[in-house]
Amino acid sequence: MEAVVYKGPNEVAVEEVDEPELQHPNDVVIDITTSCICGSDLHMYEGRTGADPGIVFGHENMGIVRAVGDGVDTLAEGDRVVAPFNVACGFCENCEDGYTGFCTNVNPGFAGGAYGYVAMGPYQGGQAEKLRIPYADFNALKLPEGDEHEDSFALLADIFPTGWHGTELAGLEPGESIAIFGAGPVGLMAAYSAKIKGAAEIYVVDRVPSRLELAEQHCDAKPINFEEGDPVEQITDAHGGEVDRGVDAVGYQAIDPETDPGSDAYDPARENPAVVLNQLVQTVRPTGQLGIPGLYVPSDPGAPDEMAAQGRLGIDFGKLFEKGQRLGTGQCNVKQYNRELRDLIIEGRADPSFVVSHRVGLEEAPEMYERFDNREEGVTKVLLEP
Amino acid sequence: MEAVVYKGPNEVAVEEVDEPELQHPNDVVIDITTSCICGSDLHMYEGRTGADPGIVFGHENMGIVRAVGDGVDTLAEGDRVVAPFNVACGFCENCEDGYTGFCTNVNPGFAGGAYGYVAMGPYQGGQAEKLRIPYADFNALKLPEGDEHEDSFALLADIFPTGWHGTELAGLEPGESIAIFGAGPVGLMAAYSAKIKGAAEIYVVDRVPSRLELAEQHCDAKPINFEEGDPVEQITDAHGGEVDRGVDAVGYQAIDPETDPGSDAYDPARENPAVVLNQLVQTVRPTGQLGIPGLYVPSDPGAPDEMAAQGRLGIDFGKLFEKGQRLGTGQCNVKQYNRELRDLIIEGRADPSFVVSHRVGLEEAPEMYERFDNREEGVTKVLLEP
Amino acid sequence: MEAVVYKGPNEVAVEEVDEPELQHPNDVVIDITTSCICGSDLHMYEGRTGADPGIVFGHENMGIVRAVGDGVDTLAEGDRVVAPFNVACGFCENCEDGYTGFCTNVNPGFAGGAYGYVAMGPYQGGQAEKLRIPYADFNALKLPEGDEHEDSFALLADIFPTGWHGTELAGLEPGESIAIFGAGPVGLMAAYSAKIKGAAEIYVVDRVPSRLELAEQHCDAKPINFEEGDPVEQITDAHGGEVDRGVDAVGYQAIDPETDPGSDAYDPARENPAVVLNQLVQTVRPTGQLGIPGLYVPSDPGAPDEMAAQGRLGIDFGKLFEKGQRLGTGQCNVKQYNRELRDLIIEGRADPSFVVSHRVGLEEAPEMYERFDNREEGVTKVLLEP
Amino acid sequence: MEAVVYKGPNEVAVEEVDEPELQHPNDVVIDITTSCICGSDLHMYEGRTGADPGIVFGHENMGIVRAVGDGVDTLAEGDRVVAPFNVACGFCENCEDGYTGFCTNVNPGFAGGAYGYVAMGPYQGGQAEKLRIPYADFNALKLPEGDEHEDSFALLADIFPTGWHGTELAGLEPGESIAIFGAGPVGLMAAYSAKIKGAAEIYVVDRVPSRLELAEQHCDAKPINFEEGDPVEQITDAHGGEVDRGVDAVGYQAIDPETDPGSDAYDPARENPAVVLNQLVQTVRPTGQLGIPGLYVPSDPGAPDEMAAQGRLGIDFGKLFEKGQRLGTGQCNVKQYNRELRDLIIEGRADPSFVVSHRVGLEEAPEMYERFDNREEGVTKVLLEP
Repeated sequence: MEAVVYKGPNEVAVEEVDEPELQHPNDVVIDITTSCICGSDLHMYEGRTGADPGIVFGHENMGIVRAVGDGVDTLAEGDRVVAPFNVACGFCENCEDGYTGFCTNVNPGFAGGAYGYVAMGPYQGGQAEKLRIPYADFNALKLPEGDEHEDSFALLADIFPTGWHGTELAGLEPGESIAIFGAGPVGLMAAYSAKIKGAAEIYVVDRVPSRLELAEQHCDAKPINFEEGDPVEQITDAHGGEVDRGVDAVGYQAIDPETDPGSDAYDPARENPAVVLNQLVQTVRPTGQLGIPGLYVPSDPGAPDEMAAQGRLGIDFGKLFEKGQRLGTGQCNVKQYNRELRDLIIEGRADPSFVVSHRVGLEEAPEMYERFDNREEGVTKVLLEP
Repeated sequence: MEAVVYKGPNEVAVEEVDEPELQHPNDVVIDITTSCICGSDLHMYEGRTGADPGIVFGHENMGIVRAVGDGVDTLAEGDRVVAPFNVACGFCENCEDGYTGFCTNVNPGFAGGAYGYVAMGPYQGGQAEKLRIPYADFNALKLPEGDEHEDSFALLADIFPTGWHGTELAGLEPGESIAIFGAGPVGLMAAYSAKIKGAAEIYVVDRVPSRLELAEQHCDAKPINFEEGDPVEQITDAHGGEVDRGVDAVGYQAIDPETDPGSDAYDPARENPAVVLNQLVQTVRPTGQLGIPGLYVPSDPGAPDEMAAQGRLGIDFGKLFEKGQRLGTGQCNVKQYNRELRDLIIEGRADPSFVVSHRVGLEEAPEMYERFDNREEGVTKVLLEP
Repeated sequence: MEAVVYKGPNEVAVEEVDEPELQHPNDVVIDITTSCICGSDLHMYEGRTGADPGIVFGHENMGIVRAVGDGVDTLAEGDRVVAPFNVACGFCENCEDGYTGFCTNVNPGFAGGAYGYVAMGPYQGGQAEKLRIPYADFNALKLPEGDEHEDSFALLADIFPTGWHGTELAGLEPGESIAIFGAGPVGLMAAYSAKIKGAAEIYVVDRVPSRLELAEQHCDAKPINFEEGDPVEQITDAHGGEVDRGVDAVGYQAIDPETDPGSDAYDPARENPAVVLNQLVQTVRPTGQLGIPGLYVPSDPGAPDEMAAQGRLGIDFGKLFEKGQRLGTGQCNVKQYNRELRDLIIEGRADPSFVVSHRVGLEEAPEMYERFDNREEGVTKVLLEP
Repeated sequence: MEAVVYKGPNEVAVEEVDEPELQHPNDVVIDITTSCICGSDLHMYEGRTGADPGIVFGHENMGIVRAVGDGVDTLAEGDRVVAPFNVACGFCENCEDGYTGFCTNVNPGFAGGAYGYVAMGPYQGGQAEKLRIPYADFNALKLPEGDEHEDSFALLADIFPTGWHGTELAGLEPGESIAIFGAGPVGLMAAYSAKIKGAAEIYVVDRVPSRLELAEQHCDAKPINFEEGDPVEQITDAHGGEVDRGVDAVGYQAIDPETDPGSDAYDPARENPAVVLNQLVQTVRPTGQLGIPGLYVPSDPGAPDEMAAQGRLGIDFGKLFEKGQRLGTGQCNVKQYNRELRDLIIEGRADPSFVVSHRVGLEEAPEMYERFDNREEGVTKVLLEP
């Protein structure tokens, strides 16, 4: 079958690979109908991870069940399903506690597995015609038949739950104010989640006007462009003080607003891996809470300094402590949210598809990777359709 | 009246000061029966804060009500009470939410007030004959008449709730394992709290044998002496892996185990302000939680480097994120716990007085400050009795 | 001053009464700008309580501060405030835990106090020109100056928080389904709260078409008219099974759908005090939760049978247990929600004023009591303006 | 193989039955080393359920894995395991949410499955030589090799977690007071759990002196004999008011203390199915919470009146509402607690085996059923050893 294969830094190709097969009684194999390109794929694409060439990308996958293992009880051929990006067993202590992003059985020696991702276990990605889903009763979420809401449902694999997770990690309650740093797909989904949950005020920080517009239009958020002034000041001025909650939807490749913008293009020289964390400490009020779904890594060969290369960041911990803040981090445990988010979509109460900018055939993947990696304005979220 | 007055670095004196009076209808004034010296007093004593000479120390206070304001409803002359170290109004948003350590009314421009402490508001300390308690219906906890449990009750002002708070910030549940760094009074109280709450395994890390002995004897904890080997390895070896929860009861004046012990004496040159935080990230398992009652400050003139001097610490955030850990920080909100802890003492289910090493008259305060500051073995917790 | 005074069953009059004065340093006195008639006032009005003639009604009050006690710190003359219907001290154990509806200090021998209500303490009601607010720093919520949102803010005294409380007692989470029995003001506010919180599906049960229309129009709820068929069946048919959560916004004067409607008028002979509780047990799924803000009383002289007269009701507890349901009851602790709801109103994210059908002068109170008590169609919520 | 087979009211026999076999890739079969007789088995034994003759009893099972299905990943022959009494799939919505007692897949048409119990699905009981465990990775909890703690571990199948569950449903926090009605095995385990969790005061109510003695001796509980006076008064007198929390470990076959004891023998004529519920409403303070693990049934042919025969009980709901109480019910979700309780046993912090009065061979089961059903003093908990 055809699949998107990583060839080396800044290069992917659509190539023939072996079709996945049932390997365990609890597996199913699905025909992919939609697989998304994720911002986190770009870390591998750019060569800033240890990913070896040959890996099939794709951890945001949905499709139709084609083959069903003997031990699978609740799925049948023809079922339409979306798979969380996490691969999880369902019976380790972490899975039982709802931490399916930290399963201790699927990726020996590490807590957490995923499809098509370096170091996340031997699970081929879904930017391909077919995908094997392990522990399928546990990992595949059933969807209504047909093709309604295809875009929205595809976002249940990762970014809608991940954005939601950000607001959960931040402890957001209805009627509270929240600042979300980053208006990429996850940041937009966090803002959209905050709106659904009844936040009183939502601030979204970014530098790309079209993304800030989406936040304003679809999430009732107040846009804060950090190229136009210190985002902390902008928010505290607008709000009349510090906000209740904060979300970091940026991660370690954060741009320092105090560096010179030069041009509109993304410039790695402007990176400062702790800048958003420290802005959040300042932006959020004493007793407030920070939710950090944005990715931080224990090892970054491209880091601006030696300390950051080992994942050690200069954090304003004295201030954080003085304010008595709390924070939560880590990959989203998609299963904690995907049922309820699916139901909101079905009932017409949520339509996260506004972030989708492109739906293209698999063969266009190489071009779209390049454009997405260039942070081309208007390329917000790309869906592949094999 | 007589009071312990700060004269300048490494010097306190017992001097005559003005007696406190009722200033507001909600005030009471008490005769102090016990006031404790706290480890956090040493920061001021050592001159590592901005404290000006003249301040009366003492934020761990109990005594007998002598004068009662017109607006006070539930206290009468003769009542025996203990006051949380926090001064709190009871009606700001933070107080309403239980964050009485972050009251926004009692110390304008700052969230949180306390007795006898630099930058914590105009509240004279209680290492004296008398103390004014503002918002007394809210801030004074009634105790049974008499003098039973005097030592244990005195610890309700700060360290017993603060140790308990550490385990709360860590999210400890019965049957879990926990590592507590620091066996000073707060660390011991955290370990004792973990025992009361039904922890399955408790590890306590320190370098002072007599403190580790108290942890073992009174808290059923497994002692880990960090001078005898990497504490992370010692714990994960003993436990067979990472533990569920961690508490930092050390704070920013942490000693780096990799530095040369030289002698037994406390050596500021061995300080490494983030070392315990990073040990906790390693010691606690993925999805685990860190409780950080140990003090971190936004400005430390005596810090080992320039970054730390501004309260910015090098934290292994990449690893923390990869493990999906959460953490909570900040001063204890004493009122969240002091009623229940008082009842445990009354019912004989808790007796935290094992940490008390000395009960002396006020006039011995200067000597005891010096001995406590020298970390003299056996000087664990000093109570003053005016 | 003029006030609405209870004269005996089915009679209120506007009469001169003594003006309230400051009685305690923590009091304020306000000029009432709006005071609402509440459905629970009708219990007294109908003579179905032990209320003695002479009581001044009114527990949903807002206005402008006129006199300020010496011990009040955060309020000044001219401040616009709304008072929770609960009178609470702010420092008893229940208040500290957020249970301000169960204050143990303000109404000796009973947990909970309120303005203008039988057995709820010596607090004159606010259907009058002035009102005394005890413990005013704690009990008065500040509002923005001016007269914007007057209707919506008035609802913060009781029914908006009480409706919200219903959904909290039910444990409602975003994406879940909920059935709300009763579309009176509290039921409508519960449905509106469920919408704000991101419920996936909301069912509202009543018999009055105009109320069901409000639920549909303003709360995106699915209306269920119990005169047209068993509401349990209607809901489970529409939903495809039992719902996640249920709210009882009816209370003990519930109408049994199996009785003969006869006419449209309210008919006490149709009452069956446990009928809604048992419908909820059936409507909600195993592991679901019931929130019960609707009033139940330990003694009801007008009850249909002797057991009910003592507040003992026949509840399908065997079924409830088999389903492993949980339930929460009791008066709303208004302070737990009123800040955040106020902020939602200020930010334009909530506008509960759609329930207000009438705003009239104090002198029209007797007429409006009569019409409201007759359950006259269209008389949903009456606001008095002295 | 030999098994305990239900023959009809008041009769069980040890008979040959077919050995269980692997039926599904996720099954294991174990050799039973211990299977307990449960109080809930007596409902069937007495003929007060719809159980047909032929059923093999036994839902509290532990043993050694002998046969392993192809889809099982974490268990191997020789592993020592204990199985929760619930049979659960691990991937339905209820299982995912931790409600493994209400699995919707294992017992079609009903939420919840169990071994050897009427209406709980087609799962043969374990009072036999062998047992099949479905979804074994999910349902079998691994134990340390050997035979240490055999009695204590056996109690992890049901009563230790069920008692613990009672205190969870009651929302017990450290330092609180709790009243537990019933000192049978579940009540004793609830009291023991309360002690482990750091309750300040524990009251246990029963009529059997030897059980009350166990409560006093092993759980630090204050014994209340309801034959010696109204238990509500005894508790509120001893405590000085109502307690914080209550647990009903009795269920629908409760004895009314106001009936004439006549003799010491159990007398069904004294039953009053709501008496304990109503005592709890009185005993627990306003804002308190009731945990109800004691069994209530939707249909009871032996009930004292027609209403109770349909599971409808006369509950003092007016009083419960006035006090703003909450309550939780239902079967224990054993998996929510069994890991942590196992670890407490391994670490020597819990030893629930004090409730075990008898360990006998399978062949003695008929005699022990009879003696246990007679509530013979001293027959607290019987363990069978095939």
